[in-house]
Formats: sequence, C-alpha cells, structure tokens
Amino acid sequence: MKKDTRLVLALDETDRKKALNIVDQVADHIDAVKINWPLVLSAGPEMITELSELTDVVCDFKVADIPNTVHLIVENAVARGASAVIVHAFTGEDSLTEAVKTAGNDAEIYAVTEMSHPGGKMFTALHAEEMARMGVRCGVAGFIAPATRPERVKAIRSIIGDRKIMSPGVGAQGGSASAAIAAGADYVIVGRAICKSDDPAAAAKAICDDIRTVL
Amino acid sequence: MKKDTRLVLALDETDRKKALNIVDQVADHIDAVKINWPLVLSAGPEMITELSELTDVVCDFKVADIPNTVHLIVENAVARGASAVIVHAFTGEDSLTEAVKTAGNDAEIYAVTEMSHPGGKMFTALHAEEMARMGVRCGVAGFIAPATRPERVKAIRSIIGDRKIMSPGVGAQGGSASAAIAAGADYVIVGRAICKSDDPAAAAKAICDDIRTVL
Repeated sequence: MKKDTRLVLALDETDRKKALNIVDQVADHIDAVKINWPLVLSAGPEMITELSELTDVVCDFKVADIPNTVHLIVENAVARGASAVIVHAFTGEDSLTEAVKTAGNDAEIYAVTEMSHPGGKMFTALHAEEMARMGVRCGVAGFIAPATRPERVKAIRSIIGDRKIMSPGVGAQGGSASAAIAAGADYVIVGRAICKSDDPAAAAKAICDDIRTVL
Repeated sequence: MKKDTRLVLALDETDRKKALNIVDQVADHIDAVKINWPLVLSAGPEMITELSELTDVVCDFKVADIPNTVHLIVENAVARGASAVIVHAFTGEDSLTEAVKTAGNDAEIYAVTEMSHPGGKMFTALHAEEMARMGVRCGVAGFIAPATRPERVKAIRSIIGDRKIMSPGVGAQGGSASAAIAAGADYVIVGRAICKSDDPAAAAKAICDDIRTVL
C-alpha cells in the first residue's frame, strides 16, 4: 500500500453508485479506501475489484475465524484486488499467521488488538498489548489503533517497532488527524467527515493539509 | 428456526452450483444450512436468498464489529432471508445487544463464546463463561459450543437455561452427534462428513439416525 497522503477513506456508503462517486471525487487525496461487509452484502463482492481500479482497497472484514476460513476469506479478497485485509487478533496465533501466510507479498494484514466502542473495553482491551506482541510474532504488516486515544497509538507503537499503524476515529468521532499522526500513526481513517460533506474533495484535502503540518 | 432432525449442514463448498446441489440432496434431513463469508465472496450475497428457498439459512458470519456495523450486517443478512446469524460475543455487550435488536422476531442470534481451534484457547476461552452470561443478558437465542468437547456443551448449558446450543465439530473433526445432543446441544453442525461423501443424503441420514438414538 502506498503511503503518500496518509489518509484512508472509510467508505461507509452501501449504495454502489454513491460509493463509487465519492471515491472518484477524493481519489487524489487518499492512499486507500476502506470497505466493510455491509458494502459487500449490498453491492456484491465485485465492488472490491471495481474500487481497486480507482485506489488501493483495504477490506475491513474483521476476520475472526478458524485458520481454514481465514485462509479462504483472505485469498478471495486479495484475488479480487484487496491491497490489505483487517483481521482480529483475538482468535489467536494460528488464525493470524494463516492470514499473513495467505496474503503473502500480494497484500498487507492489519491486526485489530483493541476496539474503541464501549463494548471493546469488556474483553479485547484486557489483552491489547499481548495481542500486539503476538501480531509482531505472526508477521503482520500493521495494526489498528484508535485516533481518539493518541496515548494508545503511542503504546502500540512502542511494542510494534516500525510496523504500520492505521487509526480510525478521526472527524465525526472526535479524533484529530494530525494528533494521531504525531502520536505515531501511519494512516488515519476518516469516514463521515468526508462522505457526509457537501464537498468530499475539499473535506479530504483539509484533512491532508492538517496531516502535513506534522510530517 | 425449526428443530426437527437437529442436523445443520455446514456448507463449506464455495462453488454455487455444487453448493446448491448438495443442499438439494440433503434438504429432507437437515433443519438448516450454515454458510460463511467465503461462499458470499465467491458466489455473491444472492446465495443467502437462493438457499433460503430450500431450507433455513444460518449466516455464520462471526460478526465482530462496532454496533453500527453489526446492525448493517445483520439487517442485510436477514433481509436476504437468513433465519439466524452467528455473532462473536467478545466485542462486548453493546455489539451483541445491537445484533439481537436488529434481528428482532425475524431471525435468531447465536453467540460465539469460545472456539475449538488451538488459537481459540489463547484469549476467547479465558472469558467463555462470562461471555455466555453476557449473552443471556443480551437476549441471544442461542450459543455455539464445540461437539468435540461435550463437557463444554454441558458447562454452557448450565449457564444459559433453555436457550439453544448449536455444536460444530461433528464428523471429520471427531465429535459424535449423539454425544453432543446427549450433553445438551439442540443442533449439531456437520460439514465435510456430508459434503465430501459420495452419497451426501445417506451420510446425512446416518447422522440423523445417530441423533435419534438419544432423543
């Protein structure tokens, strides 16, 4: 995945035409687009390929299954054009290793080690740092860490060396793009602040400008 | 979901025609078919609807996301014809509650509280019983518990009262259908022992016969 503007668009739109239209408008300002299962369920898996012709695609599938199923999901997503796949760490070392092995040199695996919604504090947060160390052992390309809590980005950075960090939560959820990058994130993920804007390109450009102040 | 033969077919086939052909052969012997993301990624989300015309469909999507994304996934799966959706418990009470609320009276939510692959012992197994108690509070219809370990089926049964249990791991993975049902499972999930059989209908019937010995 390229690392130029540091901005990843969370494409939370589930209508195919609207989704493609937004990406078309902001393609110059983003390094990648992040999609999730709701778009696949509404618009079909062909969306992965269609979007990959416009920009890099991160499949935020939060894969959380046994190794054989992880293999099939990552294999299909990468074959359809994904540049990265997001996988949960909590299903353990064998599942995460299988994701990395399946992606090979064709795509990057990002591991989720904690989640920022209230329920995320119940179980995943208890093991976040242990899961980050496990992710390093498994050879993942990067990790997901919340932009809303730059101290967590710093904590994960201290564990993972020079692996990448992708940080959701910028904009509508209150996180600052420049603060997340300054804390050690490689990419910030922004959804509503761009998708719901009357001028998505201008909104994306403003975030890129903010990021550049700390590079 | 009906509860007649107690047998749920794990449709691990990713080719659309082969998948439909197997279900067609065994439809009389099963209560439902369980599908996972690899089939959606290879054959499209329309498969949920096509299969739902033959039997009940359990979407084993192991949903593990923030409440809003959980809502969108469950809503779409149910709108396409799913009778049940499998959701991870470890993402916490808000995500699981959102799944139950979204499914409403149209579908059942089954919660995963532990997994039987080696990696499942690293994190999920540590919280299995706490997650089962949480699932009861959230109002899930049932839980997933491994047929390969009937003592775990018994342990989960002791926590969840009369909610349902669906048990994978019968057949190729070594679990016995009758032992799982005797331990308290409502359904057993069987994949390869049926799908890879030269005579899927006969293989399914043999498992139903085994189950009937303990009913």
